[in-house]
Amino acid sequence: MPEAGTYVPPVGEYAFLLREAFGADVVARATAGALSAEDAGDALEAAGEFAAQVFAPLDRVGDEVGAQLVDGNVVTPTGFSAAYKSFAESGWVSASVAEDAGGDGLPGSVTAALSEFWNASNAAFALCPALSHGAIRALQANGTEELRATYLPKLVSGEWTGTMNLTEPQAGSDLGAVRTMARDNGDGSWAVTGQKIFITWGDHDVADNIIHLVLARTEGAPEGHRGLSLFVVPKFSLDANGNPGERNSVVTVGLEHKLGIHASPTCVLQFEGSTGYLVGELHHGLTGMFVMMNEARVGIGVQGLGVADRAYQRAYSYAHTRLQGAVIGLPEGTPIAGHPDVRRLLLSMSSRISAMRAFSVLVGDVHDRAGEDGNAALAEFFVPILKSWLTEQAVHVSSDAVQVHGGMGFIEETGAAQHFRDSRILPIYEGTTAIQSNDLVGRKVLRDGGKTVARVFEMIREQLTALTATGDAVAARLAERTERAVVAAERATQEILGFGASPRDAFAVSVPFQEMLATLVGGWMHATIVNAVLAHPELSEEDTRRLTEADFYSAHHLAQVHALAETVAAGEIGA
Amino acid sequence: MPEAGTYVPPVGEYAFLLREAFGADVVARATAGALSAEDAGDALEAAGEFAAQVFAPLDRVGDEVGAQLVDGNVVTPTGFSAAYKSFAESGWVSASVAEDAGGDGLPGSVTAALSEFWNASNAAFALCPALSHGAIRALQANGTEELRATYLPKLVSGEWTGTMNLTEPQAGSDLGAVRTMARDNGDGSWAVTGQKIFITWGDHDVADNIIHLVLARTEGAPEGHRGLSLFVVPKFSLDANGNPGERNSVVTVGLEHKLGIHASPTCVLQFEGSTGYLVGELHHGLTGMFVMMNEARVGIGVQGLGVADRAYQRAYSYAHTRLQGAVIGLPEGTPIAGHPDVRRLLLSMSSRISAMRAFSVLVGDVHDRAGEDGNAALAEFFVPILKSWLTEQAVHVSSDAVQVHGGMGFIEETGAAQHFRDSRILPIYEGTTAIQSNDLVGRKVLRDGGKTVARVFEMIREQLTALTATGDAVAARLAERTERAVVAAERATQEILGFGASPRDAFAVSVPFQEMLATLVGGWMHATIVNAVLAHPELSEEDTRRLTEADFYSAHHLAQVHALAETVAAGEIGA
Repeated sequence: MPEAGTYVPPVGEYAFLLREAFGADVVARATAGALSAEDAGDALEAAGEFAAQVFAPLDRVGDEVGAQLVDGNVVTPTGFSAAYKSFAESGWVSASVAEDAGGDGLPGSVTAALSEFWNASNAAFALCPALSHGAIRALQANGTEELRATYLPKLVSGEWTGTMNLTEPQAGSDLGAVRTMARDNGDGSWAVTGQKIFITWGDHDVADNIIHLVLARTEGAPEGHRGLSLFVVPKFSLDANGNPGERNSVVTVGLEHKLGIHASPTCVLQFEGSTGYLVGELHHGLTGMFVMMNEARVGIGVQGLGVADRAYQRAYSYAHTRLQGAVIGLPEGTPIAGHPDVRRLLLSMSSRISAMRAFSVLVGDVHDRAGEDGNAALAEFFVPILKSWLTEQAVHVSSDAVQVHGGMGFIEETGAAQHFRDSRILPIYEGTTAIQSNDLVGRKVLRDGGKTVARVFEMIREQLTALTATGDAVAARLAERTERAVVAAERATQEILGFGASPRDAFAVSVPFQEMLATLVGGWMHATIVNAVLAHPELSEEDTRRLTEADFYSAHHLAQVHALAETVAAGEIGA
Repeated sequence: MPEAGTYVPPVGEYAFLLREAFGADVVARATAGALSAEDAGDALEAAGEFAAQVFAPLDRVGDEVGAQLVDGNVVTPTGFSAAYKSFAESGWVSASVAEDAGGDGLPGSVTAALSEFWNASNAAFALCPALSHGAIRALQANGTEELRATYLPKLVSGEWTGTMNLTEPQAGSDLGAVRTMARDNGDGSWAVTGQKIFITWGDHDVADNIIHLVLARTEGAPEGHRGLSLFVVPKFSLDANGNPGERNSVVTVGLEHKLGIHASPTCVLQFEGSTGYLVGELHHGLTGMFVMMNEARVGIGVQGLGVADRAYQRAYSYAHTRLQGAVIGLPEGTPIAGHPDVRRLLLSMSSRISAMRAFSVLVGDVHDRAGEDGNAALAEFFVPILKSWLTEQAVHVSSDAVQVHGGMGFIEETGAAQHFRDSRILPIYEGTTAIQSNDLVGRKVLRDGGKTVARVFEMIREQLTALTATGDAVAARLAERTERAVVAAERATQEILGFGASPRDAFAVSVPFQEMLATLVGGWMHATIVNAVLAHPELSEEDTRRLTEADFYSAHHLAQVHALAETVAAGEIGA
């Protein structure tokens, strides 16, 4: 049993998912054979080792010490700066960047795995490169050739990092209320003034420069969303050679005292006529941001998967070493993992994690092949489900992990509490669960009259037909339960479509509707896994675990679909 | 709207519950007319004021500063000592003590209300008198007249406090593994030696003496549970006048660094031949503890209710003052409480809280009238449901309260995060949720062949008949949904009874079974409330809220019964 706190990257699970679970080598398919799942396996092996050996040991000091604001500069905990430099030098920033932006262009199914490893080993740290990826994406999609040449290479190499400056005290989910102003200096540069809050990794000491992307209003611009433009504002202005020179007038005026992810500096940034440059067209700032939104939402979903798996690993290891009480039906000396309810909790966690991980690979793959028939709509449809499901479950799974520890789970030194605290931001930032559900219901279900969701039901049924054909008992139970769940979900979808004329009813049950679809997707993923497992000539120990997880998921989680479908039908209550 | 963090005690809700909801003045009924709900109302008014004005303002400093170990002594945050003395002098310790032990003997339905107020206003602080109550109960039930005369008066007045010393590093849920030894000094006293952990309010500076009740083994005693005896070990030995004299050899060797309830000192106590006195018979220590166990479990359940309501109040107040985004179908300037999903979250919380509060009163009342036909069995049956339901929901409700706050919920200064952290211990201490469920299934369902649970189903159906007779639309929906839930729960109970010969199957689904019954009880409580409301000649604003909550609960929560019943039927998976 690995020591408590040790992180074991699930490299073997990804080998199974990338090579077999989806009926093809998804890496080879997405790259037209340029790369195979086996090649990707080497990268995952190396990334997992880096995550386990460099990131994971810093997770606890990051929580205990946290980022500190000292004389206006953010100081990260001891070890973070060296770890980040090693991360960048090892090529892990560029690994997840598209080729057209100068990165390695690994397929989405593989970068999802990398992202899980970084987030599981150190969720607070992983946000730093994640924000850079967002900035790279926004610059690449919208910036002029000059802007791209100036900023992309060092962002992609990881020498510099990027940030996203959207939120202001009065402008959270509603960005139309942004007040930060940019004034044209007349020399190609702009003077940006205003206060931005909740700026993740907004200041730090791990890299040489920080490239802020800032949403601001310009003089005479329309009110609301349509008056916003996007600017790039470096922490250090660049000298004639493109190196960090004079300090730009961006001041870190505060650092939030947060429930979790303490090592991730959440800054209040004051822009005081700071020099910036327009990215993309005037008044198209929000569109310029949207290009990175799907990717960022998927990224936070995967962060949920990572936090959940780390919490699970900790609970699993504790439950297999802690002795307490006689275990019913098992010999003396059996650790608490043998108690029926501890076993239930562990299976409950792992069966959700396995389903979520498979879905993460599927979503990466569908994005990779978005050009293929119907995949673009599917990719869009999956984003809110992935983001909300994986983040909400991160909270539940990390709560279960505390419970497995009993009283020790409440003691900070045990480590389980940190994941519970860290997890709680995930269903909030990068669009709350409600915002995801409104996107799902409004843009992805009502807008196409339920066409895409119907296609998903069809895809699920294809797996069920294959399950039934295996003649296996677990497969048969899973197929029967999932088929009933599909029927319930179809009925609930008709209710949602029927609410079309009464949007408050639809939005009052959009979260239960989203949770229902996500829970059903979990059954689908287990069906996919079981079909792949039963194709093996002989079942390995891992295969047996996979079958047990599928059986457990369908008995304990899938049944929730019926309850949620009934809730959806009720619409808004008492309004 | 009250300022964020202000606590508003639900005195009006208790007036409704104590006077009307259960078809009688439950206070008058329990006290044979000696006290009425109106009399109790005055006490609740005063207690609520104390909670709001004295306890609530200390909740935040308690969290931020916490209890500290300084030179071997626990120091509580500024203000705690004065507040505790005022609490004791106001008679709030003795208010919840039985008359035979020298207290006021308020009925259980009323002390439940008091307990909610203390816990909602300051959960960490409320543990201090709660532990005293446990010690009083154990001493009163088992102690000799001399012991009672020596310790009870000052414990009841609150001049001294009490603690429970059960847990050791290797003996958590399994007390049979306790190793602390007591050696007979031959002079009527014993020398107690060993280390106890997780001792709540094990040391502090708010009262003059601390009376430890300690579970220990004696020489030659049998192994396991049957070899344990109970001892009283004062922090300060008493002088000839019964006043605190010399320091006994009990040392606070550590203070836990916890996720929440920071102001409650969780001590590691080292007993070094400390002088103690036997309470009750030798080797009957566990029985001596059991007399206070039900009360303690009910108390922690109500702590869950309190934490949930405080978190809800904070979310409610934030949602009614924060403006963000246009609210669909409502005028400009509508705060976020109008957004369909924020409204859903708030109703989801309050509909659970109202159901749990009603159940808490019912359980208090059934305990008060335990001598009446069948009530003793009902009282025993309700304890694990109350404890597990109210504490698990405290975690969920306080998590929802963070969600309502959006990004601000993750900032510690907002205050919502504290409740989320505080809540997490509740489903663990005083018997985990799994331990409650094993008690429920093993001792309260299997042992009487389902007789008591069948009686509960019958009591539920009585309310449903009354609901249907009202002819009201909300009542009709609630009756229909609850009747279907009863049918599902009956089926699941048959499954549990069928597992009798295969205990691992029963215990593998005992938590889902317990959650199913608790969820059904919530529907029952709403049925009870709705019947009382519809008897009013005119509906008040509060009555309209009660109907909406009932309607919401039955559409969003009650449906879970069906999913859980399906899970119960599955038994243990893959074993």
